[in-house]
Amino acid sequence: MIELIRQVPDQIEGSFRLEIPGIEPKGGRIYICGMGGSAASGDIIRALAPETPIEVVRDYSLPAFLGPNDAVVAVSYSGNTEETLSAYREAVNKGAAALVIASGGKLLEAAKRDGVPWVAIPGGLPPRCALGWLMSPLLLALARAGAVPSRLEDDLRTAPDFLRGQLPSLEGPHSPTLDLANKFYNRLPFIYASTRFYPVAFRWCAQLNENAKSIAHSAALPEMDHNEVSGIVNPKAFVGEVWAVFLRFPEDYERTSARADITAELIRDSVMGITHLKPEGSCTLHRVLWTLIFGDMVSYYLALAYKVDPFAIPRIDILKERLGKI
Amino acid sequence: MIELIRQVPDQIEGSFRLEIPGIEPKGGRIYICGMGGSAASGDIIRALAPETPIEVVRDYSLPAFLGPNDAVVAVSYSGNTEETLSAYREAVNKGAAALVIASGGKLLEAAKRDGVPWVAIPGGLPPRCALGWLMSPLLLALARAGAVPSRLEDDLRTAPDFLRGQLPSLEGPHSPTLDLANKFYNRLPFIYASTRFYPVAFRWCAQLNENAKSIAHSAALPEMDHNEVSGIVNPKAFVGEVWAVFLRFPEDYERTSARADITAELIRDSVMGITHLKPEGSCTLHRVLWTLIFGDMVSYYLALAYKVDPFAIPRIDILKERLGKI
Repeated sequence: MIELIRQVPDQIEGSFRLEIPGIEPKGGRIYICGMGGSAASGDIIRALAPETPIEVVRDYSLPAFLGPNDAVVAVSYSGNTEETLSAYREAVNKGAAALVIASGGKLLEAAKRDGVPWVAIPGGLPPRCALGWLMSPLLLALARAGAVPSRLEDDLRTAPDFLRGQLPSLEGPHSPTLDLANKFYNRLPFIYASTRFYPVAFRWCAQLNENAKSIAHSAALPEMDHNEVSGIVNPKAFVGEVWAVFLRFPEDYERTSARADITAELIRDSVMGITHLKPEGSCTLHRVLWTLIFGDMVSYYLALAYKVDPFAIPRIDILKERLGKI
Repeated sequence: MIELIRQVPDQIEGSFRLEIPGIEPKGGRIYICGMGGSAASGDIIRALAPETPIEVVRDYSLPAFLGPNDAVVAVSYSGNTEETLSAYREAVNKGAAALVIASGGKLLEAAKRDGVPWVAIPGGLPPRCALGWLMSPLLLALARAGAVPSRLEDDLRTAPDFLRGQLPSLEGPHSPTLDLANKFYNRLPFIYASTRFYPVAFRWCAQLNENAKSIAHSAALPEMDHNEVSGIVNPKAFVGEVWAVFLRFPEDYERTSARADITAELIRDSVMGITHLKPEGSCTLHRVLWTLIFGDMVSYYLALAYKVDPFAIPRIDILKERLGKI
């Protein structure tokens, strides 16, 4: 697993060598359909381009109000995710401009048959280890269509070197990732971020779920200050085992950042501990990728601590098998 | 607190006697700005009207791509929620069509000064106990503008009688709400619902947070089948204390409903227990309100079990005070 986490820079670099078809920007919304890691890639582009009307659809169906100027990007690593196939079929039936990103499967077949532009990414990885392959073509397609700022393509181009320079400090016996994994071990990981960067917190939880088979909880600021902050009291025995992480992006509104400080102070005596994580990097895209890889490493080390195989996801396998029979 | 939960039908009825100004539907999106209970009311309208492009903004700022055909509804029970005031100010500066719903405060003052249509709702309640006052005028304004189906107004009109008929079975020593509160006591409440009805699960958590001062976690199907389901393993001592609730709306896609069955089966041996809750009611709106009141009652009984005052939210009070000084 750690080799695959180290490969994210190669995936990004490799994406620049893929053939990326243009999607026609018509000024409407961009609906990115996907589940799990594919949805995460959509979430991340959305966080990177808040000026672009992007919506991520994690479901079987597109919104009824999908308009003629809207575009749909269906992303599925395997190409066989049933929710994404269903949403893709709706998009085609409605005549929406579409793009497919997949390593194969029914989705890629359908795109070829339907004459829908597609990007074929290399297969063979667990989908959650393919974030570079999933998000880079998506970002490049949108940037080249003028749908997201072109500087994001520049930032993506410099990301592999930046990340390779950072990787040595993100792993190993004295790394902050191993340290945080030890904090999470036999505890309850609670991950907080601002609304804009909440998808990064959500992705951390997903990686802790799948790689370490650990429960994990996330919430967004400022919303959590209106409810969740009051709840970090009971049951005392469990709250006392919470390790809270605040992802502190410099892009956050000043008031949201002040809220993170005060919120952390208010819950400090109730929880086991708090980590404020300040992402490294000179631009938003680098900081987001750095934080994602940080979370990946934590989930990997936590899997080792729990003595579980980070690759095995037996319940998800059973789900697919059982759903395939009905 | 229980008296206030019982008052939801009166709040709905009272809303029909309020003067509700029209908002001009221009065919764009409707952005509902609010936090906590106000945001929940927006979420609920969104779940009830999936054919309408509604977005709920829980932040200081509106999307940069807010267009001339979009409308903004700023909802704040106190009228002094700083995030909502900030988003409202942006809407006015951009010349967006706007509507304000508040019981008073700076927001109502600003609307009157700015010539923005407003609804003044009765004040004096904890915002989380005013959901009837918050969501009903919102729904009525949108229904009368033709932005959401008019049958929702009809369903809202019949809701008070329906809910009054249901209330006796939702409280008392033999009620399913007290029973579930006992299940949640000294355990970890995990609330699951489909993507469409996820806001109901999120609201349950918020009420458990604020009323019972309990941590609570929620996630949506089908997304949770791609990550969270794998995580309900470690730490074993805590996972063994999870009580999971699946909110089972008959509107859910058949595949999502099948997923809920299989997911529950897969985690059954890891968690302490599972409740499948089938909402009562003859239409979506009634079922949603029934489920919300069910959750309110559970949070009330859980507060009693923890021997905490359901009204007191000292951390939120401190947050507001501290933020007011910077």
